[in-house]
Amino acid sequence: MKKLLLINGPNLNRLGVREVGVYGVETLQSLESGLRQFASEHGAVLDCFQSNLEGAIINKLHEADELYEGVVLNPGAYTHYSYAIRDAIASISVPVIEVHISNIHKREEFRHISVTAPVTAGQIVGLGFYGYKLAVLALLGEEHNG
Amino acid sequence: MKKLLLINGPNLNRLGVREVGVYGVETLQSLESGLRQFASEHGAVLDCFQSNLEGAIINKLHEADELYEGVVLNPGAYTHYSYAIRDAIASISVPVIEVHISNIHKREEFRHISVTAPVTAGQIVGLGFYGYKLAVLALLGEEHNG
Amino acid sequence: MKKLLLINGPNLNRLGVREVGVYGVETLQSLESGLRQFASEHGAVLDCFQSNLEGAIINKLHEADELYEGVVLNPGAYTHYSYAIRDAIASISVPVIEVHISNIHKREEFRHISVTAPVTAGQIVGLGFYGYKLAVLALLGEEHNG
Amino acid sequence: MKKLLLINGPNLNRLGVREVGVYGVETLQSLESGLRQFASEHGAVLDCFQSNLEGAIINKLHEADELYEGVVLNPGAYTHYSYAIRDAIASISVPVIEVHISNIHKREEFRHISVTAPVTAGQIVGLGFYGYKLAVLALLGEEHNG
Amino acid sequence: MKKLLLINGPNLNRLGVREVGVYGVETLQSLESGLRQFASEHGAVLDCFQSNLEGAIINKLHEADELYEGVVLNPGAYTHYSYAIRDAIASISVPVIEVHISNIHKREEFRHISVTAPVTAGQIVGLGFYGYKLAVLALLGEEHNG
Amino acid sequence: MKKLLLINGPNLNRLGVREVGVYGVETLQSLESGLRQFASEHGAVLDCFQSNLEGAIINKLHEADELYEGVVLNPGAYTHYSYAIRDAIASISVPVIEVHISNIHKREEFRHISVTAPVTAGQIVGLGFYGYKLAVLALLGEEHNG
Amino acid sequence: MKKLLLINGPNLNRLGVREVGVYGVETLQSLESGLRQFASEHGAVLDCFQSNLEGAIINKLHEADELYEGVVLNPGAYTHYSYAIRDAIASISVPVIEVHISNIHKREEFRHISVTAPVTAGQIVGLGFYGYKLAVLALLGEEHNG
Amino acid sequence: MKKLLLINGPNLNRLGVREVGVYGVETLQSLESGLRQFASEHGAVLDCFQSNLEGAIINKLHEADELYEGVVLNPGAYTHYSYAIRDAIASISVPVIEVHISNIHKREEFRHISVTAPVTAGQIVGLGFYGYKLAVLALLGEEHNG
Amino acid sequence: MKKLLLINGPNLNRLGVREVGVYGVETLQSLESGLRQFASEHGAVLDCFQSNLEGAIINKLHEADELYEGVVLNPGAYTHYSYAIRDAIASISVPVIEVHISNIHKREEFRHISVTAPVTAGQIVGLGFYGYKLAVLALLGEEHNG
Amino acid sequence: MKKLLLINGPNLNRLGVREVGVYGVETLQSLESGLRQFASEHGAVLDCFQSNLEGAIINKLHEADELYEGVVLNPGAYTHYSYAIRDAIASISVPVIEVHISNIHKREEFRHISVTAPVTAGQIVGLGFYGYKLAVLALLGEEHNG
Amino acid sequence: MKKLLLINGPNLNRLGVREVGVYGVETLQSLESGLRQFASEHGAVLDCFQSNLEGAIINKLHEADELYEGVVLNPGAYTHYSYAIRDAIASISVPVIEVHISNIHKREEFRHISVTAPVTAGQIVGLGFYGYKLAVLALLGEEHNG
Amino acid sequence: MKKLLLINGPNLNRLGVREVGVYGVETLQSLESGLRQFASEHGAVLDCFQSNLEGAIINKLHEADELYEGVVLNPGAYTHYSYAIRDAIASISVPVIEVHISNIHKREEFRHISVTAPVTAGQIVGLGFYGYKLAVLALLGEEHNG
Repeated sequence: MKKLLLINGPNLNRLGVREVGVYGVETLQSLESGLRQFASEHGAVLDCFQSNLEGAIINKLHEADELYEGVVLNPGAYTHYSYAIRDAIASISVPVIEVHISNIHKREEFRHISVTAPVTAGQIVGLGFYGYKLAVLALLGEEHNG
Repeated sequence: MKKLLLINGPNLNRLGVREVGVYGVETLQSLESGLRQFASEHGAVLDCFQSNLEGAIINKLHEADELYEGVVLNPGAYTHYSYAIRDAIASISVPVIEVHISNIHKREEFRHISVTAPVTAGQIVGLGFYGYKLAVLALLGEEHNG
Repeated sequence: MKKLLLINGPNLNRLGVREVGVYGVETLQSLESGLRQFASEHGAVLDCFQSNLEGAIINKLHEADELYEGVVLNPGAYTHYSYAIRDAIASISVPVIEVHISNIHKREEFRHISVTAPVTAGQIVGLGFYGYKLAVLALLGEEHNG
Repeated sequence: MKKLLLINGPNLNRLGVREVGVYGVETLQSLESGLRQFASEHGAVLDCFQSNLEGAIINKLHEADELYEGVVLNPGAYTHYSYAIRDAIASISVPVIEVHISNIHKREEFRHISVTAPVTAGQIVGLGFYGYKLAVLALLGEEHNG
Repeated sequence: MKKLLLINGPNLNRLGVREVGVYGVETLQSLESGLRQFASEHGAVLDCFQSNLEGAIINKLHEADELYEGVVLNPGAYTHYSYAIRDAIASISVPVIEVHISNIHKREEFRHISVTAPVTAGQIVGLGFYGYKLAVLALLGEEHNG
Repeated sequence: MKKLLLINGPNLNRLGVREVGVYGVETLQSLESGLRQFASEHGAVLDCFQSNLEGAIINKLHEADELYEGVVLNPGAYTHYSYAIRDAIASISVPVIEVHISNIHKREEFRHISVTAPVTAGQIVGLGFYGYKLAVLALLGEEHNG
Repeated sequence: MKKLLLINGPNLNRLGVREVGVYGVETLQSLESGLRQFASEHGAVLDCFQSNLEGAIINKLHEADELYEGVVLNPGAYTHYSYAIRDAIASISVPVIEVHISNIHKREEFRHISVTAPVTAGQIVGLGFYGYKLAVLALLGEEHNG
Repeated sequence: MKKLLLINGPNLNRLGVREVGVYGVETLQSLESGLRQFASEHGAVLDCFQSNLEGAIINKLHEADELYEGVVLNPGAYTHYSYAIRDAIASISVPVIEVHISNIHKREEFRHISVTAPVTAGQIVGLGFYGYKLAVLALLGEEHNG
Repeated sequence: MKKLLLINGPNLNRLGVREVGVYGVETLQSLESGLRQFASEHGAVLDCFQSNLEGAIINKLHEADELYEGVVLNPGAYTHYSYAIRDAIASISVPVIEVHISNIHKREEFRHISVTAPVTAGQIVGLGFYGYKLAVLALLGEEHNG
Repeated sequence: MKKLLLINGPNLNRLGVREVGVYGVETLQSLESGLRQFASEHGAVLDCFQSNLEGAIINKLHEADELYEGVVLNPGAYTHYSYAIRDAIASISVPVIEVHISNIHKREEFRHISVTAPVTAGQIVGLGFYGYKLAVLALLGEEHNG
Repeated sequence: MKKLLLINGPNLNRLGVREVGVYGVETLQSLESGLRQFASEHGAVLDCFQSNLEGAIINKLHEADELYEGVVLNPGAYTHYSYAIRDAIASISVPVIEVHISNIHKREEFRHISVTAPVTAGQIVGLGFYGYKLAVLALLGEEHNG
Repeated sequence: MKKLLLINGPNLNRLGVREVGVYGVETLQSLESGLRQFASEHGAVLDCFQSNLEGAIINKLHEADELYEGVVLNPGAYTHYSYAIRDAIASISVPVIEVHISNIHKREEFRHISVTAPVTAGQIVGLGFYGYKLAVLALLGEEHNG
């Protein structure tokens, strides 16, 4: 049974509480439990982690190298400037798929660039919570080049 | 039964022929037949279209507004400068999901910016042919915000 | 009797259908017939052409050099990047007036620059369908420097 | 009977005197009297104002809000940097149409950007003195979106 | 006997007609026939193609991969923005040499950058019609690195 | 009998010694003797000069104005910043053709811009040692505009 | 008793009249009388000045050097380009505090930079009319470094 | 009784210790106790928090949404790049006022831009410790637009 | 007897009062009287004008076209953004020499660019009050190209 | 006996594990013990610290001000954006030498700029683990200016 | 008797020979002898030096520190990129005045920036050969700040 | 016995003479003899070379390829623009270590970028004369990656 890890970055603990116009009304808890269920239906185990600390996300990515076979990562605003998280992704060999709930290309200019994307396996943007499920499928599914 | 449209842009007719290090060895025909099959398994019909002409892609997008319930679009290199395709997407109300086979953020700098992404429902990048399947799922599946 | 040509570029066949908040509810057909009527009232003949293909617009501009005494051109999104259309305008000696229905300077940043304007006789921006009529008047009317 | 205001900005008092290669040989007086005549023929009254002082142009724009139903404005070189005139236009509800005698897109790079255009109803460029007449027509004529 | 292909891009059908100060008075027909003759004298066959459509140029480049042993390409204004033509060149293995009649580095700033040059075998600039002959020689002649 | 001058700039004395992956294994001596032979076969005399000193290249260009009927110049890395060599070329009336062995548009970004090209007659890029021969032909051959 | 000066720049005479969504419904007169009252309650005298002329603001700042012990300055749109006002502030030794009613960092990009701020004692942004009161307090109150 | 929160970001624990030429000789403890006293005199309670960890500041801002009616925030150097703190401010509905002790517009260029300011209620810059008091007043005082 | 005009722009009335470290201790009055004396010794009459108003400087330049044979102009901070003063200089045929007391290239970056210099006869920078004398000499003296 | 501190930033705990092509096969433990030994041989004590948390590195730098006589710092990816670490270095008076194992100027463009270097005593780049030893020598050795 | 040095940089030995439209018909010899004469009339000795080698100009500037009391320097094209000449000027204490014959601000954009000007005493631009005389006067004459 | 070469670039012959605030009071002679002594103590021979000519430095680097086992290079101001020296370093296989006496990251912006560093083995910055000794150690010492 494959083990996957979900990492949500800064302010994603505010899902359903904050800016519902942008992110919808569902909470992080509902996202995590729905996704655990989805993974389980596809014969996998999904662990969930959220932190607002850049360094804690880096630590978790390092851990993932040994413990998981795939990572679904929404780096939140760190997407746009955390070269340290980028280096953490580059330092592990487990595939990482980057997910953004909203279409970042529709929002403020600083959100159009992802400094982490170049070292991930791929990126899914703008498809809401459903994007996380697609990332799980991609990690479980076929080969992907990148 | 939902009707979906797949549009592949310039040079994607060269899949499996050209730059196999970047795009793999499968051909466009194999991509299209695999995806038609996949759509059919999910209770949908998928029509396929490829063109190297910007204007032909625009025409097809206009048509799609009446004939289809969702579009999977890989605009190829037009992604990076075709404001005309962008306007075509904005002029239709059927959802469009942008797909890139390779991780465009890992390649030349001009490929890091998509001028079409801001008017699509979402974007799937770097997951190979599998990314097209995820786009089909997203169009058939749940609601997504953008 | 002066012969004029109206060229509308990409997505302008969607007038009245698409983005009515930006472009109003009248269709291309109504624009063209109104303008033909207007030209006729001013003792001129106006032919109309629309295409989504950059190359077709170039071909038409070349033709215009022999057949018409003035061109009203709305290059749509090609305004912002088609150096090929710019060269086509520069390659003919018949005067071309560029028209934009909406005020492009109020919209996305990429719309603020026209690569075609430097080789036209002039530009009319933001005055709706009425701008086309003013362009016809200018072509029929007095001398203009540039 | 509609009341319109013509505002010409810095150095336009030098028309016919200065740089005749760019602006032609007619003077400001001839422009103003011709335009007053033209307005009168179309059933309107046109008042004329010229100043080299940015602040005086701002004051006049404020006045226009109560006294006129439309403003034809050639901001001269202030077009390219006067955010104060831009704010003055934004602070009044009477429509303002920006006119440039020469094709500013053909000249030095700094003339390619208008900081005032985004808050005007529209812009007419490069059609010589005739452009002022078109602006008068547009203010008297039909609705225009922006 | 080597088979070569000459592709001329947008507005080059206007050679000898347009902007003779920049491009000289000879026509495309004269260029093509002179070059066919030149190729023949060097024991090669040269086919000629001109189009104003970006997509048609892409199609022709794809065809060339099977039918020709070398391509002389003047992409006209597409040189400066057509990443789609760039990808088409990269997708074929036959060598392509880019030719510009005028010295593009002497002209407007947008002409100083070629987006296609990085994937060609080489570039010949500013040597008039003679540059095409040199390109033919280079394709027939010795090895060249790139 | 026409007299031509070949000037090779900084580090080209290292040809065949340095970076053979980029420049091949032939030496400067072999380039020069081959080219002298080639010129002689075409009824011309070619003198050769190489220097790593910007000022020495300028001096040689000044001399060329009286002594030669054409210059083949590979300015090496000075291509990208020597406005002094640019001015030297502009100060002489003998035609100068710029040659680069490798395709500079494929290499580091700083190599994409030539500050000397705008004042040369033309530029030949990426065709290896063969490019020098083409430059000789162009100087001996037909007229070229620029 | 301390003497303070309030200077409001271009278009602030339109307060309460213009763009009430941005600036609120109170007028300049109400701002000035309220602030005079506030100063008086804190044992100070406040004089008020408004002008749309850059040069008049400069003149007033020069005067202030002798007549006042502090200046509250809202330079309006001049904030973003008037290096002349900047120099005027630098030429006087009385402290100047810059006030903006709206949060300029939330508005158009050109409003994000203040060319005058580097030579003021400090800046208060986005706190509405209340910001002026805080500026008065700061001028009357404690020491501030800068 | 209103409850307010003071958050000081990285290196502000070094106040009075570090760079006294820039920040003065008073310590963080003295700032906090002075401000608590000031708040109390104005009928409010002020809690104080300082951290060098970006994530800890984000956590505290989230907490503030429930526990406080206003936040005074000096993000220190995070002001210039922490889009994560920006998102945290945007995710809460309690008003946040940004304070900088020194005039950041007088210092290094990177300090001229605040990425957090666009989502705050307002900003007070360069008025020393006194700026914090003004922020408290603004939170207790009148309405402010933003 | 030649008639010359001296125009000093914004804040130069503060000479000797303001920033003596940058501009020295002599006043504008002393500069003007010294220069009048100097002109008189060289057989010329010099009139002096200073204003802080951009528009007043423009008006004076227009006047100069008829009344003077040369203008010495220190545009102060308007040097760096007043395209309106630039246009005024271009609109007159009397030669204008631009003078700056301090070495503007040693100061803030915004002072390194002069938007007026391209239309003047020449520029003298950094030579203190003495620079004005040199400008007078140049206007009285020999021919100068530009 | 001098006390020195070694601080390694984010992902340096992955040395020997990650990207061995870039960083070599030795681990952080081996680096630290080798360096402690080296310091000891030179009569000094070296303490070692590694953290992935920006704030923890800031805290450690503050501590170092009292406890150590020199700091060797490899800020990892924080080098390129952590203005907070920069401020921490500036807030302490103990000399800090920045070390990078790989030649950051050879890698991605974002690694070419160090925001921390301007406030350090010096920087040693690209000399592998040996660079740390040189930094220790420099701290123990002679005076260095900066 | 004051000793002055004139240094002319690259291509100025071509004066009167090259680009006479820009630089006039007089030669370097005539410039030098005229200026020696002028210096002599003002009681000074002027030595003249010209070189196309950046390093030779640097050597001469070093020498000047001991042998001369003032330097008139026209760095030619080195003006725009020779930080080495800039450092040479900064390394000597004798005043250096930079002269340009033509108005560099009217020419190509790269000529608008002088990297040497910030370390000179002043700059004289666009006044032809006469500018050199003014520089001599300035060196002999009064004090100048900078 | 290892043979090393020290190359000092432009203006470093002015050490101890020029700008002692930046570079200290010791001369080049003292630097060279101290370093020769240091090398000798470490069992190596060090030859010294200084030149202000870019081309002479290139020549010396070429020579070094055969005669030395390591080069210590301070390119002075050429660091910031000499792509020719960069190419010279790339053309030799002996390791080159770049040294800067002062912390170039603390000085003018143009000094923050080194165009030579990407092709060196490493860089030592800001550690005064001591930095040269460290470079010698590194060349004699262990392996370094780069």
